[in-house]
Amino acid sequence: MDWKAEIENAARRIADHVQRTPVLTTRGFGLPGPVEMKLEQLQHTGSFKPRGAFNTLLSGPVPRAGLVAASGGNHGAAVAYAARRLGHGAAIFVPEMAGASKIGLIRRLGADLTVVAGEYANALHMAQEYEARTGAMQIHAYDAPATVAGQGTCMAEWEGQGLAADTVLIAVGGGGLIAGALAWLQGARKVVAVEPETSCALHAALAAGEPVDVEVSGVAANALGARRIGSICLDLARAQGTRSVLVGDDAITAAQRALWQERRLLVEPAGATALAALMSGAYVPGPDERVAVLVCGANIAPDPLERG
Amino acid sequence: MDWKAEIENAARRIADHVQRTPVLTTRGFGLPGPVEMKLEQLQHTGSFKPRGAFNTLLSGPVPRAGLVAASGGNHGAAVAYAARRLGHGAAIFVPEMAGASKIGLIRRLGADLTVVAGEYANALHMAQEYEARTGAMQIHAYDAPATVAGQGTCMAEWEGQGLAADTVLIAVGGGGLIAGALAWLQGARKVVAVEPETSCALHAALAAGEPVDVEVSGVAANALGARRIGSICLDLARAQGTRSVLVGDDAITAAQRALWQERRLLVEPAGATALAALMSGAYVPGPDERVAVLVCGANIAPDPLERG
Repeated sequence: MDWKAEIENAARRIADHVQRTPVLTTRGFGLPGPVEMKLEQLQHTGSFKPRGAFNTLLSGPVPRAGLVAASGGNHGAAVAYAARRLGHGAAIFVPEMAGASKIGLIRRLGADLTVVAGEYANALHMAQEYEARTGAMQIHAYDAPATVAGQGTCMAEWEGQGLAADTVLIAVGGGGLIAGALAWLQGARKVVAVEPETSCALHAALAAGEPVDVEVSGVAANALGARRIGSICLDLARAQGTRSVLVGDDAITAAQRALWQERRLLVEPAGATALAALMSGAYVPGPDERVAVLVCGANIAPDPLERG
Repeated sequence: MDWKAEIENAARRIADHVQRTPVLTTRGFGLPGPVEMKLEQLQHTGSFKPRGAFNTLLSGPVPRAGLVAASGGNHGAAVAYAARRLGHGAAIFVPEMAGASKIGLIRRLGADLTVVAGEYANALHMAQEYEARTGAMQIHAYDAPATVAGQGTCMAEWEGQGLAADTVLIAVGGGGLIAGALAWLQGARKVVAVEPETSCALHAALAAGEPVDVEVSGVAANALGARRIGSICLDLARAQGTRSVLVGDDAITAAQRALWQERRLLVEPAGATALAALMSGAYVPGPDERVAVLVCGANIAPDPLERG
């Protein structure tokens, strides 16, 4: 697949619908040198996910039955947002573990929302039933070419904004965002995957040589808790020799706190996971290696303005 | 005074010590057109105030007794931060109304902190006593040329980042930030002052033709609650025909909520006050008028990560 062309086409397709997110270069976080950041958590719905959702919806016909998605939160919010913007209906099945904050976000976006007891797999099962019954279109959260090409526009945009780093750290759940970055960069910069120790589908797959199921838990699980890595991501990661480093929940929470205390960026744990790799030493750059962190999600729970 | 040169000199002086804050252009907030924003709330200590503090400290000798400031919060945090970075001591007198969040911020910055019962005037009185007793240097929060020139670097930086707007909306407390903007722009763009109905020292002074004391209260009072406008600000505002529009607490809170819900920017009420003028219709741009909002403070209380 000509990923560069796919991503350039995606960027043109979605340009009127996504936020061009700001970048900054900053010091702090106990690190010896500066870090470039892209503030993709300021994207519509608080995560990068609308890029893939819009690209999918704008790449072909959408059935009259509209859209269906099963999501731990951020993907569901993105599908609901994109559907409303483009005039489609959307049925979103969300596992309880998504939490009140993300569930409230999806509800405000006007989707037909079903909260499903138990874990993500139950929500996925109900979404598949709905798809079979109604003919609604399923938008995959991470393992479809149109999704990956959409997420790839984030890295393309960042390069257009003057990214200088040698190495970009990206948090990984199902792998859509990092797959888009790898697909765009084609080895032009080093990409480091960062996963929670307790939700590390890419790390496990790289070790096994194929996608394997993992248990998922921890503070970032409602965003990064994919049980199995996407095959598009795994293929790109293997082809480019991408390494996955692991961080503990304490490191993620410390990075989340530092982003707020030092830079007034309020992010969810998943959004702090890539920085956690630098702060904890899970990834140690070389002496002259310039690093960048993709900040990817802000849907924190509980919502800071909903509390008393 | 040659303000352009003063501000250019200030920018050179403070370049290594302040964060170049990001900008973005965004749609939403119920507004018909796009809005440019400068995210100055991502400055060190969560407000624009370090610009003026660093410029003052780097403009001349600092006495061995160090610094002293009386502050409702953001100025005190900025002085504490700048003092620590440059190796000076700092005594900060804070009125109780600053709140636990800002007081905790100043404490973490390592200043010699005194929380003073009652209102701001009491803290100012104690700071003046301390200054007389020790010979410490007082940094004025808004009505000194070095402070204004420092704050003016924010608008200079924004223009360097490609600001396109015809009109820039800026929240006003004592007037340091807007004075810096007016001093830099010299009429090249329209500047609109935005004040809370219950803390409107500039509005009252423009009506009276001279600085007058006002009562201060409301959701933004701990950042914008100056009882009297700075004379530098008033002179510049009168010379340029600057208009002050007023917004109510409900409008400020609605803008604060919208910045979080729509763009995942968590700001304090003062940081949302300029946007509130657009959202509430207190300022209605002309059909082709391009507008920009300076987002100036993020030190929200209670701290979103300190709660249970």
